Amino acid sequence: MVRRLAPRWPVWLFPWRAACTPGAFVQQRTWAGATRTPLWGRLHGVAGVSPLVRRGSSSTSSQAPEVVLTCERYPVRRLPFSTVSEEDLATFERIIPSRVITDPEELEASNVDWLRTMRGCSKVLLKPRTSEEVSHILRYCHERNLAVNTQGGNTGLVGGSVPVFDEIILSTALMNQVVSFQDISGILVCQAGCILEELSRYVEERDFIMPLDLGAKGSCHIGGNLATNAGGLRFLRYGSLHGTVLGLEVVLADGTVLNCLTSLRKDNTGYDLKQLFIGSEGTLGVITAVSILCPPKPRAVNVAFLGCPGFAEVLQTFSTCKRMLGEILSAYEFMDAECMQLVRHHLHLASPVQESPFYVLVETSGSRVEHDAEKLSSFLEHALGSGLVTDGTLATDQGKIKMLWALRERITEALTRDGYVYKYDISLPVDRLYDLVTDLRARLGSQAKHVVGYGHLGDGNLHLNVTAEAFSPSLLGDLEPYVYEWTAGQRGSVSAEHGVGFKKQSVLGYSKPPEALRLMQQLKTLLDPKGILNPYKTLPTQA
Amino acid sequence: MVRRLAPRWPVWLFPWRAACTPGAFVQQRTWAGATRTPLWGRLHGVAGVSPLVRRGSSSTSSQAPEVVLTCERYPVRRLPFSTVSEEDLATFERIIPSRVITDPEELEASNVDWLRTMRGCSKVLLKPRTSEEVSHILRYCHERNLAVNTQGGNTGLVGGSVPVFDEIILSTALMNQVVSFQDISGILVCQAGCILEELSRYVEERDFIMPLDLGAKGSCHIGGNLATNAGGLRFLRYGSLHGTVLGLEVVLADGTVLNCLTSLRKDNTGYDLKQLFIGSEGTLGVITAVSILCPPKPRAVNVAFLGCPGFAEVLQTFSTCKRMLGEILSAYEFMDAECMQLVRHHLHLASPVQESPFYVLVETSGSRVEHDAEKLSSFLEHALGSGLVTDGTLATDQGKIKMLWALRERITEALTRDGYVYKYDISLPVDRLYDLVTDLRARLGSQAKHVVGYGHLGDGNLHLNVTAEAFSPSLLGDLEPYVYEWTAGQRGSVSAEHGVGFKKQSVLGYSKPPEALRLMQQLKTLLDPKGILNPYKTLPTQA
Ligand SMILES: Cc1cc2nc3c(=O)[nH]c(=O)nc-3n(C[C@H](O)[C@H](O)[C@H](O)COP(=O)(O)OP(=O)(O)OC[C@H]3O[C@@H](n4cnc5c(N)ncnc54)[C@H](O)[C@@H]3O)c2cc1C
Ligand SMILES: Cc1cc2nc3c(=O)[nH]c(=O)nc-3n(C[C@H](O)[C@H](O)[C@H](O)COP(=O)(O)OP(=O)(O)OC[C@H]3O[C@@H](n4cnc5c(N)ncnc54)[C@H](O)[C@@H]3O)c2cc1C
Repeated sequence: MVRRLAPRWPVWLFPWRAACTPGAFVQQRTWAGATRTPLWGRLHGVAGVSPLVRRGSSSTSSQAPEVVLTCERYPVRRLPFSTVSEEDLATFERIIPSRVITDPEELEASNVDWLRTMRGCSKVLLKPRTSEEVSHILRYCHERNLAVNTQGGNTGLVGGSVPVFDEIILSTALMNQVVSFQDISGILVCQAGCILEELSRYVEERDFIMPLDLGAKGSCHIGGNLATNAGGLRFLRYGSLHGTVLGLEVVLADGTVLNCLTSLRKDNTGYDLKQLFIGSEGTLGVITAVSILCPPKPRAVNVAFLGCPGFAEVLQTFSTCKRMLGEILSAYEFMDAECMQLVRHHLHLASPVQESPFYVLVETSGSRVEHDAEKLSSFLEHALGSGLVTDGTLATDQGKIKMLWALRERITEALTRDGYVYKYDISLPVDRLYDLVTDLRARLGSQAKHVVGYGHLGDGNLHLNVTAEAFSPSLLGDLEPYVYEWTAGQRGSVSAEHGVGFKKQSVLGYSKPPEALRLMQQLKTLLDPKGILNPYKTLPTQA
Repeated sequence: MVRRLAPRWPVWLFPWRAACTPGAFVQQRTWAGATRTPLWGRLHGVAGVSPLVRRGSSSTSSQAPEVVLTCERYPVRRLPFSTVSEEDLATFERIIPSRVITDPEELEASNVDWLRTMRGCSKVLLKPRTSEEVSHILRYCHERNLAVNTQGGNTGLVGGSVPVFDEIILSTALMNQVVSFQDISGILVCQAGCILEELSRYVEERDFIMPLDLGAKGSCHIGGNLATNAGGLRFLRYGSLHGTVLGLEVVLADGTVLNCLTSLRKDNTGYDLKQLFIGSEGTLGVITAVSILCPPKPRAVNVAFLGCPGFAEVLQTFSTCKRMLGEILSAYEFMDAECMQLVRHHLHLASPVQESPFYVLVETSGSRVEHDAEKLSSFLEHALGSGLVTDGTLATDQGKIKMLWALRERITEALTRDGYVYKYDISLPVDRLYDLVTDLRARLGSQAKHVVGYGHLGDGNLHLNVTAEAFSPSLLGDLEPYVYEWTAGQRGSVSAEHGVGFKKQSVLGYSKPPEALRLMQQLKTLLDPKGILNPYKTLPTQA
């Protein structure tokens, strides 16, 4: 671990002040005054490349044990859908020639989820290129009563993206074209299968950014992001997809193409139908195209990575940030010491700051370098001076910013390497956010390898994860319904951003009243009367 | 009119630069260097007080001619709802004692819309205080097949807020309590009948602002704002209500209370049901309470009011603004010379800058006075220096800011004083925004008193208004479907923010495909099978 360097105020404060001119501000510095290149060196090998794009070749997948079939692990019964026949395959082949995949090895990757906790046994994967093809496929499936599982990047964390039984997998992988981009307004129209990271690159070349960003960006599709109403790392600044998405094209269960693909910031011509599909996890329709508003690319981005002595200080640092950084604050993420241990151990990433009980990552994005530097400088001076923060490091160039972000973004990956992961993604009042972690550590004792807390603190969103050597019903019994009851007791949400999928259906009632669950079911019946779209998912299980 | 003063650069530039320290920056200045107090004096009498709260006593209402009954002016047939009986009144009286209004004079104000173009003949106005009372009322109306028109502040501009025939008026006027406010997160929970301006005051005292603002703020209710998905003056910065509203409580047609009133920034537990009701104009349920995220109150607010020589310059000034003001830009509004003539003539407001073909109002909101001043100063210097702007004035103190805003906010009011108003509220690609106005002026010639264009340029939202001495079918024939076809030709929206109400039902097809209209109808049938909520409104008319 990094040796503790007592903060040497004068040394730190002086160059900081001087750094308020653009030229002097591009150097990444630690606050004790020394640039810790060896640490950056260690980080460097992985930064800037999303771990997920390379996942196929990672050691995890090849060495990992076979994943148990979902229908064997969970008490779930197949619904009376038809089974895919040779004739069906021939029909699909006519609709999308050479894009009907039945090779078992190719199917394997699409039958198992990212967390490797679910496995379906689908016999066919379809890869349409256009919404007309999707429409044609769904019309046929609807007539034939064939169940369909839409799949984007397959990075979902609640088992929504893979079949439970033999549902047809409808992949958006080849629907990856940008349709248009308006340079003045920043409105992007693209197909649903575009990979988030590629869209980011595309719009950044045009001086804009995507309004969302997440650790899975190298694999996840924009359609999957919308289907899950993904939150992610820019939520604090740019808000929910319900606000930034301007239009959608959706193919309904019976093949009807619903074109709500407007590129207007305002359109109050009747009900805002697109909203229904944002967050509906593929159960109400297949999103085929998206129109989304991209914010201008900030001229100056700074990331500070800070060590905090306690959770109270994490909260106070957040309030201070909001007050002193105002409109340029673009992210406020936290992680605990155990998270840092995990990324160090499994991914060989090292902490750029001294060991601390908590770490926070503060990002600013603004339009004027020297103004942002001044704001950040005042904030950091205050935070360090008042003891809210004990150590920290600042990055202003892209490479180093990516390295700092990797520490936070790759926690999910480090966790999967630690063993079986029990994942909870909850919203809580911010001042109670960490209590549940402390509480669970005491409750679980040595049953768990690790109990960690991290997440989007600025949004009141805790990622609570428990790892163990293997899946254990008794550990699960100690976790659930305890975690959900605790959350409901705080009027929190039992799924802040990851959605419901297959895994959280039974717990919806902790966050939604019966009237809401009934209305969800009614909407499902209205839009997908035969229930062929992503069955066994998202809708509440019958009590 | 103000005498044209040639810009005296050195005089202007010098104090401007000097003004970049906080102390020096609080003075409102015109760019020719002189403070034009006489103009402010003239404005002063009206600024800061919303025109709408005083409307009851305004000369318009008392002198205005009787408004023609809607069912006489328009070819609309009463649907077979029951008629309110004495027994019904007695039941209502039991549910909400002393809050069942049948006095014709009191009813008058609720039967006629703000524009005075629609009149219903409802015989009863109900004023519940709680959602339980609303639930009780709707359950009864549902059983009895009585039609209900929910009414907020009755400022809607599309005839949605008043009955068409004898629908019961359900007013939210007494549902005006704040339920809670979280000081750290800025989350406000309140009843639907709270007046926007009062909420603004409430949260501003706590160092936050409402994420929306509109000219009707003195009268409109937050429930009405949500029901119409109001856009308004802060949309550019804080985005749509679909993003800022966190939760809703809604009473459905049959009296079911749907409680989605969470106060969490993130909640992906199933479909986001609240979204259905935002913008549904009272046709799917009655919104009874709201949870909404308020942004922190900016430390520094500046408003510049500028004269532009042409529409091309209005657009270029906007691009320059976005680039140079970045994250602190909070509004960009424009109005044409005829708008200025109307506010001068009817409301005795005078232009604070020299006569120009176009005016723009630029607002910045930021967290650090001197940084904002510097950004604004660079921008204005550039805009004036490059001829984008020919004259301008800047306000930094609240009183003067309100006066400048009044020029823009009170255009709607000035128009109603000018005669019969044909109103169009459309979204268009920003570079074609004003072409329609020019085009119509030529097309209508002397038939129209005024053809004016103004609006939220930053959102691509044009308010196009035509005034005439009185309603004329032949003028209407020249306007419609021409305006809608023109808009559809640009793939615009025929109702950007005002909604559909009674007046725009027949034109929905210009902006929405048949599949979308069908789904709207299906949702209506699902949620309000007897169609008792706001009948004759919002849903597409049968082709
Ligand atoms: C390392 C890592 C970090 C993550 N970080 C975040 C985070 O910060 N915030 C967050 O919210 N999530 C996060 N996630 C979860 C996940 O990445 C998101 O849910 C993502 O939006 C899923 O996109 P996808 O394309 O991979 O969808 P998939 O996983 O393929 O599918 C997810 C669900 O959406 C449906 N779906 C996919 N595409 C469509 C479509 N076109 N039409 C209809 N339905 C569709 C699927 O049926 C399924 O139910 C993370 C995941 C990982 C592995
Ligand atoms: C001077 C002026 C300026 C304006 N500026 C703007 C602007 O900038 N942007 C903009 O978008 N609009 C603007 N408007 C239009 C209008 O103010 C908005 O539509 C406003 O949101 C309506 O609120 P209200 O409370 O007056 O609703 P009302 O007019 O009473 O009702 C409007 C519709 O909503 C329904 N409704 C009302 N309350 C509820 C409820 N609690 N539950 C369910 N349904 C309900 C009604 O049935 C009706 O269909 C302006 C109007 C005026 C007069």
